[in-house]
Formats: sequence, structure tokens, C-alpha cells
Amino acid sequence: MLKLFYAPGTCSLAAHIALEETGTAYEARRVDFSTAEQTKPDYLAVNPKGRVPALVTDRGIITETPAILTYVAQSFPEAKLAPAGDAFAFARIQSFLSYIGSTVHVAHAHGRRGARWADDPAAHEAMKAKVASNMAACFELIENTMFEGPFVAGESYSIADPYLFTMAGWLEPDGVDPTRFPKVLDHRNRMTQRPAVARVLAALKG
Amino acid sequence: MLKLFYAPGTCSLAAHIALEETGTAYEARRVDFSTAEQTKPDYLAVNPKGRVPALVTDRGIITETPAILTYVAQSFPEAKLAPAGDAFAFARIQSFLSYIGSTVHVAHAHGRRGARWADDPAAHEAMKAKVASNMAACFELIENTMFEGPFVAGESYSIADPYLFTMAGWLEPDGVDPTRFPKVLDHRNRMTQRPAVARVLAALKG
Repeated sequence: MLKLFYAPGTCSLAAHIALEETGTAYEARRVDFSTAEQTKPDYLAVNPKGRVPALVTDRGIITETPAILTYVAQSFPEAKLAPAGDAFAFARIQSFLSYIGSTVHVAHAHGRRGARWADDPAAHEAMKAKVASNMAACFELIENTMFEGPFVAGESYSIADPYLFTMAGWLEPDGVDPTRFPKVLDHRNRMTQRPAVARVLAALKG
Repeated sequence: MLKLFYAPGTCSLAAHIALEETGTAYEARRVDFSTAEQTKPDYLAVNPKGRVPALVTDRGIITETPAILTYVAQSFPEAKLAPAGDAFAFARIQSFLSYIGSTVHVAHAHGRRGARWADDPAAHEAMKAKVASNMAACFELIENTMFEGPFVAGESYSIADPYLFTMAGWLEPDGVDPTRFPKVLDHRNRMTQRPAVARVLAALKG
């Protein structure tokens, strides 16, 4: 059985939803960030990067959200979470996942994880001050040039949708008014109506 | 015919090499960073993010290095640049690509592109000061936990290899001694012996 290491409030939500969408049985194992469990030897043996998510499979461990999402889509083709046999359509989804992981998530992380990139506390404050405008710029690009509607990649729901949903949940905490992005906001609202999403959100609260 | 927008000294080298490995005919179109061509309307129509690489296909444009690499691998299966039909093996390569794009490249970018994440020049200096230790930490993880040898993903050359090669070329400019990472350094040396890599490097110099 697949086992997902996750933490509430992190990008592991995307993989969590994707797994739930497949209908497969899996174990969700919470990593306790309040005790910095992700930095302890037991967890570093799972993921030497000390981050979530990590997915344990019978062949080994997969880390990095885009890779886990892709693995879930390819392992459960009947869930139709990514186009199969169409290199271009698949690449467009990969492009979106990559943009979220390398630009949007990184923009967000500068608000709370500035210590990753500078030691000076004044620099951390300078980074925090730019998070709202950077996140807004990212979501402007998503709203105007990437989001096809009604789902990220058009008519078909895909692994891109829970990843966008996860990032869109960070807009208000990052000081960005989500009503500036009506398509993204509507998508976010519709996502919460999906049974799989509702189940995961309920489990995280419980 | 595929058309790759690239710029010397950037991560577009990885896609450039992957294309060359396939043996397909393609057009390589240099984007002139010295005149900030990547920020001009003509190029923004190609890639609204104002970055390279971008790959023009007959069905549309693909951006983000991991997506372009995957597209090239899947479009030219005879080049065997990624495992087909094995979700786990494919995910391990995706995980590597994602780590490079969202962590290693980002660590490097803080040396020259600090203005992306803060407006204060003192913060840019603080970011620069941490680039060498961050890049070294990334390459320690790659050397010790990711690189399987003789290629990134083991016995088979893949799209992960030109991406690692591209990042490894930034070690010295980022103030990191590459001899700290003997497997990565040996890989980098062997990569330059590959005919496709040598052809691309020669073309970039020409």
C-alpha cells in the first residue's frame, strides 16, 4: 500500500488530493512540523531533503510534488489524471507543475523560509515584503496565460488542478486578494466541492 | 521542425543537449540577453515569463526545462532518454528534474537574480553570500543520495544527465570547488566527451 508523508499547510496537499482521487487505499502519515520531525534522523531516512511530501512505494520512495503527482497519474490510468500517449498535452501539464514548483512555491517560501537563502534577518524582512507582489504576478500569469478552464488544462481534470488549488489557498495568507483572479478563485471554489478534495480537507482538520 | 529559444550560460543548455542527442533536425534561436531581448514584446509572445528555454512545436509552445526535456524524451522514444512504461523509474527521473528546477537552479539564481525576491540591495548581497554554501549543500545531496552512476539514473543515459551537467557547470562561478563531488565531477568530464554535448558546446562558442 502506498504511504504518503504529509504535513498540513504544506504543498503535500496536492499529492494527498491526487491519491484520494484515484480511489486507491493508501496510508497518510502526518509529519509533525511543530517538533521539527522533518529534520530528525528517522524522517531524513525517508527524505534526506527534510521536506514533505514523500511517497513510499513498494519499489522505493519518491519525493518532489511534480514527480509524485505524475507517478500517481501514471500508476492509476483509470483515474485519468494526466493525458497518456500525447507527448504535447502531457508536456503542457508538466510545464504547469514545474512552474508551480520552481516559481510559485518558491515565491511563497520567501515569506517564511528566507533563512534558506540568506542569513541576515534584515534580508528576511526584505524578502517578506516582496511576497505579495510576487505571488500576485505569478497568479496574473496563471490567470491570463495558463489556466484554460474549466480546469487548468481545459476540459479534463488533471494533476495540475490540486497543485493549483494548493497554491491558491496561500493567496490570503500571503496578502493577495484572490478576487483579482476570478478564474482561479472560481476554480478554487469548485475544487472544494469535489468529494475527494472535501474528504482530504476533512481528514486534515480531524 | 522544432525550434528552441536559448541563451548561452543559462539552463537552456540542458534542453539543447537533449534535442541534439535525438538526432532530429531543429532550429536553435539565440535570445540576446545583452539587449534584454527576453523582456521585449516579441519574445514575451513566445514565453510570457520572459525566460529561456522555450520550445516551439507544431502544436504550440512548451516552457520550463523539465517539461521540455520530458517532451523531447517522449517524442523521440528511439533515443531512449527516459524510461517508458515504468511509472516508478520515470518518477525517479521526474523527481531529479524537479529538484534541479525548484531547488538547485533557485539556489544559484540568488547570486545574480536577487531582485526577483527582494528590492533592498543589502538583501541581494546577503543572498549572494549564501549561494556557495547552498549550492554545495545541493550537490552534497546529489552526490550522496541521488546520483546512481555511471549516469544520474544508473546504467542508462537520460534527460537527467544534461540537466545535472548544466548545473555542475555553475559550481566554480558560484564559488564551489567541484572536486568535493567526485562522482558529479567525473560525470561532468564524461559528458563533455559525448558527441552531442561537444557539438552543442561548439555551437554555443561559434
